[in-house]
Formats: sequence, C-alpha cells, structure tokens
Amino acid sequence: MLPEFNDLDQFRAVLAGAPEPDTAARAGAEAHNSALTKPPGALGRLEELAIWYAGWRGEARPQIVAPQVIVFAGNHGVTAQGISAFPADVTVQMVANFKAGGAAINQLAQAAGAQMDVVALELDRPTADFTQGPAMTKAELVTALRAGWAAVDRDADLLVVGEMGIGNTTSAAALCRALYGGTAEDWTGPGTGLDAAGVAHKARIVEQAVALHKSQIHDGLDALACLGGREIAAMSGAIAAARMRRIPVLLDGFICCAAAACLASVNARALDHALAGHQSAEFAHPALLARLGLDPLLSLGMRLGEGSGAALAIPVLRGALACHSGMATFAEAGISAG
Amino acid sequence: MLPEFNDLDQFRAVLAGAPEPDTAARAGAEAHNSALTKPPGALGRLEELAIWYAGWRGEARPQIVAPQVIVFAGNHGVTAQGISAFPADVTVQMVANFKAGGAAINQLAQAAGAQMDVVALELDRPTADFTQGPAMTKAELVTALRAGWAAVDRDADLLVVGEMGIGNTTSAAALCRALYGGTAEDWTGPGTGLDAAGVAHKARIVEQAVALHKSQIHDGLDALACLGGREIAAMSGAIAAARMRRIPVLLDGFICCAAAACLASVNARALDHALAGHQSAEFAHPALLARLGLDPLLSLGMRLGEGSGAALAIPVLRGALACHSGMATFAEAGISAG
Repeated sequence: MLPEFNDLDQFRAVLAGAPEPDTAARAGAEAHNSALTKPPGALGRLEELAIWYAGWRGEARPQIVAPQVIVFAGNHGVTAQGISAFPADVTVQMVANFKAGGAAINQLAQAAGAQMDVVALELDRPTADFTQGPAMTKAELVTALRAGWAAVDRDADLLVVGEMGIGNTTSAAALCRALYGGTAEDWTGPGTGLDAAGVAHKARIVEQAVALHKSQIHDGLDALACLGGREIAAMSGAIAAARMRRIPVLLDGFICCAAAACLASVNARALDHALAGHQSAEFAHPALLARLGLDPLLSLGMRLGEGSGAALAIPVLRGALACHSGMATFAEAGISAG
Repeated sequence: MLPEFNDLDQFRAVLAGAPEPDTAARAGAEAHNSALTKPPGALGRLEELAIWYAGWRGEARPQIVAPQVIVFAGNHGVTAQGISAFPADVTVQMVANFKAGGAAINQLAQAAGAQMDVVALELDRPTADFTQGPAMTKAELVTALRAGWAAVDRDADLLVVGEMGIGNTTSAAALCRALYGGTAEDWTGPGTGLDAAGVAHKARIVEQAVALHKSQIHDGLDALACLGGREIAAMSGAIAAARMRRIPVLLDGFICCAAAACLASVNARALDHALAGHQSAEFAHPALLARLGLDPLLSLGMRLGEGSGAALAIPVLRGALACHSGMATFAEAGISAG
C-alpha cells in the first residue's frame, strides 16, 4: 500500500522518505554484467542502464514486461492571455483522440507493448489565470497530485508520464523561472507554434506571473499551486508514486520535466529513479535537463508532449535489459575472455 | 528475381542501375503526414523517417512488420600482425554463441521482433595477411559479395547487417584510409580493447598495408579485395541486394559503415536507402559517418558490432512508421487544426 497524504506537508514528508535502490541487486547486476559475452564496456550506456534498472527493481537480472504510459490532461486559465497558437477546446478534442486510439502516443505505446491510460482532470474547470492569482488552491493541488499518485499501476515495471493541455508550456516556463531564476526569456519557447512576437508576449506573461507570486514560492509545491496546472501536478504525483513502488520512470519533454523539477526542489534525490527519455526541440528543455543533471537517451527533434519522446525510449531501455538478462556469460558459452 | 553477377564489373553495373524511391508513394506520405493530429513538425525527425521509408517501400502508409538481422562472420590473416586484443578463435566461438542465442545481437533482434540469420564465411580459411599481399582474389571477393547478396530475405521490410571477425577494425581502418586519405591514425582506434601502444602499432600496420596496395585501388571494390574481409564484403553485397529489393537498411558501426563506404565509392547514391542506426564509440566512426553524410539515430556509446547498434534503432524507425501510418487525421478526429 502507498502512504496517503492529505496536505502538502504530508506530501513533502512522503518525498523525504522515498526509498533507495536495492544495493545487493545492483551489485549482483554489476557482477553479472562483467561476465557477459562481450568486451568490457562494449554495450556502452546500455550497461549502466541495466544496472540502474536492476537496482530499482531489486533483481539482478530483470526484464521489462509491463510498461505503463499515462497521459494527463488539464486546462489552463492563462490561455486568456493569448499565449497559445491553439484554442483551449483542443485539449478535450485530443483527449477524445487518445481514447479513440488516434494520437501519436497511442501508436508509440502500442509499438512499445505498453499499457496506456488517459486521465483527464476537470477539463471544464480550467485552473485560474495565474497572472491574476494562484492557479490552484492548496486543496486543488493536493487533489491533482493524488490523481497522479493513484493512476500508477502497482504491477507496472516502467512508467512514462505525458501530458496534453493547451497553454501548458507557459505554465512550465513559469515553474522553471520560479525554481531556477534567470529571465523569462531563458525558459520560454514557441510551444506548439508561436512566432517570435508570440514568444516575446508569452515571456512577458511568464515574468509578470512569477513577479506576482514570488513571495509565496518556497519550493516546487508552492510553485505548482501558484503557476502549475492540474496535469502537471498529476505528473508530479505519478512520478512520486512510482518511486514509492520502485518503478523506474522515463521522463518526457519540457512540461514533464518541469513537473519532475518541482519534486527535485523538495528532495534533491526525488528523481534518482528517473531518466530522460528524449531531448525535446522545445527551446528550454536542454537547459532544464542540465539543471536536473539528466542526459537524454534520444534526441530526435520531437516536441509533441503526450509522453511521446519517452515512449519512444522504452524499447531502448528494454533492449538494455534484454542484453543484460538474456546474454550468455563467457563461461556458459565457452569463449576465451581475451 | 535479383540480377546475377559473376565478376566485379558486373557488380559495378548492378550498382549503377540501382532503383530509386517511388516518388508517388513519397508524395502521398508527405500529404498524409501533414494531415495527422499533431502540430506541424512536432514529431521531428520521425516525420522525415516515415516519409523516406514510405518512398522506398512504395506505399504511402507502410508499417514495419518483418525486419531481418544478418550477422556475417569472417577471419582475417592480418591478425598475424598482432593487431587485436582477442585471439582469432573467438570468431568461431562467437558464431556458436550467435547460433545458441546467447549474444547481445540475439537479445536485441528478439526484442525488436526481427528474424536473425548468421552467415559464417569460411572461418577455417582466413583472408590473406594484407600486409603481404591482397586479402582476397577477385574471385574470392565475388564469392563473399554473393554470399551477402543471397542472404537477404525477399520478404524483409527492413535490413540490419552486422559482423563478427577478430581483426576487422584493422581492415575497416585500412579501407577508410584507402578510400578517404588522411593518415592511418585518423582511421585507427582501439577496436575491442587495445591500449595506446597497441593502437599505434595497428596504425603502422594500416599505413604499411595501404602503401603496399595503393596503386591497385581505383574504387571500393578494389579496396575490398586488397584490404577487406569476407564478412565485410558480404555486408556490402547484402546492402546492395536490399537496394534492389527496395528494403531500407539501418547501418551499424564502423565496420558495417566501411562496407557501405565501398559501395558509395562505386555509386554515390548507393546508400540512399540506408540510414545510420547508431554512432559507435569506436574512434573513427563519427568521421566515417560524416564522410557518408549520415546522421545516426542513436548515440549510446556502444562499440560491439554484431549489428547491435542498428538493431537497437529498429524500434525507433518502427515507432516513426507506427505514428505515420496509425494516427488519425484532424478530419477523422474532428479536431480544430489551429
């Protein structure tokens, strides 16, 4: 059973007590890796990926058989400020597309053999326009965190969280600006397709919003309440729940990583169970990955969200585990070890 | 039916007449891509991958359902010069490991849902030591090219070729030095694990061999005869056969790309149906990819050969096609296109 939380301080306490990897399983995986029929280190990063995964799963030779993709959707009051090229109606239309199986993430989840779940968060009740006041009350934030927390399948062995929410790159940029400083321009990009004037306007909105809330923001959970969105908070909750269940996580693009950054600001080790699946083409994602100390597995110029970049990385991690757990050792194969 | 060839000039003529992509299928794929439920360009490189693949397969909305991985193995007389950290016996031992399912490529092929074939080329009859004379006679080279040519499954819809052959990074370095010039040091790396002194010795062997054969080398097929290996020539033959059958190819690391470079030196468009699957950690692979104008899909520090890097890229290309061919259009999903 997962622990429960009813307010933000209880959630902070959960994060502070997050479990660590199984050192015995990790050591067993390292020893096994060194006996496999290949020159030492010849599988490159796949070797460290397999050892990392084995530590989290508590098995020296695991496989990935039950990945889960969860797409969270939410609407944003800040769209009133004209910060997106698409109308807010698209969020609910895309949720219908996810449910009908027609979106990119449906194809990528299916290709990766992953279970896919869609969690729409009060789409008819957008967050408040955060240029005017907090996006969410503390109670609303707890509800969104709990929605993510509850959506993680206890039997999953890998988690991808993705999102859909017109306006949410503005929210993510504001979260980064609040957590990491710099200027709004450092964190603001075109999202789904703003032109240069649109990006400049969006950056002014981000700067204005952060200035309004700055005195109220002491960590990433305060930032989520003031500047976040329900789908972003739900991703934070899901990433945290996966940690409690020792389910490794592949992070997606800029918005997903902003959700992750809110956890990291509360507990510096809160993302030890997470990797970056893909470096997005969204402007500020490389800077955010650098802040989080994450080196993405893929870099293919995607900027769609939905969990699509991370879902495409599932087979890379699965391949690493397939080698690690399926290969013969030198002794088993009767091969001269050089 | 594939055309036949009985000598190198007939093979050159086959390469000169290689088929081009289907422009109508490509145009159909471009039009379909622009109608899918995503912002324009949001799938990044996946979009160009899908359109490229559709052109080669002659269908506007194809899927990848029958990938084939072929591992070719050969032995090299140049191992007499002490250029490898492993004994030549390892080649035959690893072929047994491939056949028993214990190698990395077995796991990666299985994880990618690919058929895997192993073709061992006269392992008890190494090529001649090319520091003393040509590695192969013209007739031996034709036999090796034809072995690769015949190994491609006519029903495959994607091909990965890989290799095993103690000493073959020395052969690949010599091929690159002969085709592209520079110094032997530019093309010589540690292979499976030489130290700095070993690499320096290996570079001297490469330089000596290229000097011996230089006057006989007018294109990549001459280079293959003088400096190649049977498994390298077989990869060249398989890549060419795939082109005749319009089967797209994912190239693997340094040795596979050296085989590809031999074709490109005969016909500059001979690799239009091929992509680089993975950038190897072997020293000269990035320079070789640059010469070939190829941008690898993955870069994960692997340096194993066997086709392993390319096999890991199969799911990336499959994901691109899954999105392209499986997603709903804006019209189908009833979504505002922005």
